[in-house]
Amino acid sequence: MKQHILKRILLPIILVATGAYAGDGVDYPDGYRSWTHIKTMALHKGHALQDPFMGIHHVYANEQGVKGAKTGQFDDGAVLVFDLLNYITQDNASTEGDRVLLGVMTKDSAKFANTGGWGFEGFKGSSHTERLVSDGGQSCFACHESQQANDYVFSRWRE
Amino acid sequence: MKQHILKRILLPIILVATGAYAGDGVDYPDGYRSWTHIKTMALHKGHALQDPFMGIHHVYANEQGVKGAKTGQFDDGAVLVFDLLNYITQDNASTEGDRVLLGVMTKDSAKFANTGGWGFEGFKGSSHTERLVSDGGQSCFACHESQQANDYVFSRWRE
Repeated sequence: MKQHILKRILLPIILVATGAYAGDGVDYPDGYRSWTHIKTMALHKGHALQDPFMGIHHVYANEQGVKGAKTGQFDDGAVLVFDLLNYITQDNASTEGDRVLLGVMTKDSAKFANTGGWGFEGFKGSSHTERLVSDGGQSCFACHESQQANDYVFSRWRE
Repeated sequence: MKQHILKRILLPIILVATGAYAGDGVDYPDGYRSWTHIKTMALHKGHALQDPFMGIHHVYANEQGVKGAKTGQFDDGAVLVFDLLNYITQDNASTEGDRVLLGVMTKDSAKFANTGGWGFEGFKGSSHTERLVSDGGQSCFACHESQQANDYVFSRWRE
C-alpha cells in the first residue's frame, strides 16, 4: 500500500517539481526562424482579437506543418508557430517591432485528443520558458474549432 | 576577317536569340518560398517608394543570404527575394492579396561589379519570365547604394 501511494501521488509531484514532465506539454520550437514562412497578417486596434493578438504575426511551419497547410490535413509531428510582433506605423510605412508573444500548435492526436489533436502554448515576448497557456489550450481551441474542415488551422498555403 | 565578324557580331546575336545568354542575368529564384524569411514591411499610400512598392513585402534569403543578413557581408551566391503582395485592410485587419512583383538580388562580385556586386531583377506579378528591370539594375542600385555599410542590403536579421 505504501508503495502504491508513492507511485500514484508522490512520484508525479516529484516529476513535475523536477521538470521531468516537461515533455508532456508543448515544447518551445527551437530553430523555427529557419522553418517555412506560411503567411502574415496584421490585427489592428478594434479587432475582436486585439487582446492579446494586436500587431503583425507571421506563421511558420516545420516540414509536416507545410504539408498540412497545403493539404488541410496535418500529420502528428506538425508544428505551427504564430510569431507576434509589435507593428509600428509611421511615415506611411509599417515595420516590425519587439516580439509580443510566440504561439505554438503541435499536432499529437493521442496526447491532445481533447483539443482536436493539437497542443497549444504561448511563450511571453522572446522567452523560451515563460508560458502563457494555463487551461490546457481550451480557450485557444474554442476559436480554432471554427476551422474544423482545415484540421483546426486558420492558415492556408500561399504560393 | 569573315571569321572575326562571325565571332564578334553574329555569334552574340545567335546566342541571345537562342537564350544561351540567359545565365548572364538574374535567374528566377526557384523554391524561394521554402527559404528563410528575413523580415516583413508594408509601404502605404504616400510613401516615397509607393510606385512600384506599395503593399506588404516579405524578404526571403537562401543560405548564403541568411549568413549575409546576420553579418552584413554577403558571399557570392547569396540571393535575396523581395516578395511584394497587395495589402488589404478591412475590419481592423490587414491580409495578403495577390502578388504585385517579385524582386531579386543575386550576389556575384565580378559579374555585377557596376552595381555593387549585386544583380537586380524584378518579375511581374507571379510570372517567372516577365522581367521588369531594363537598365541593368542601375535604378535599383541608386537606392541600395545608401546601404553600402551593409553590403548594399536594407534587410537586417531579426531573431
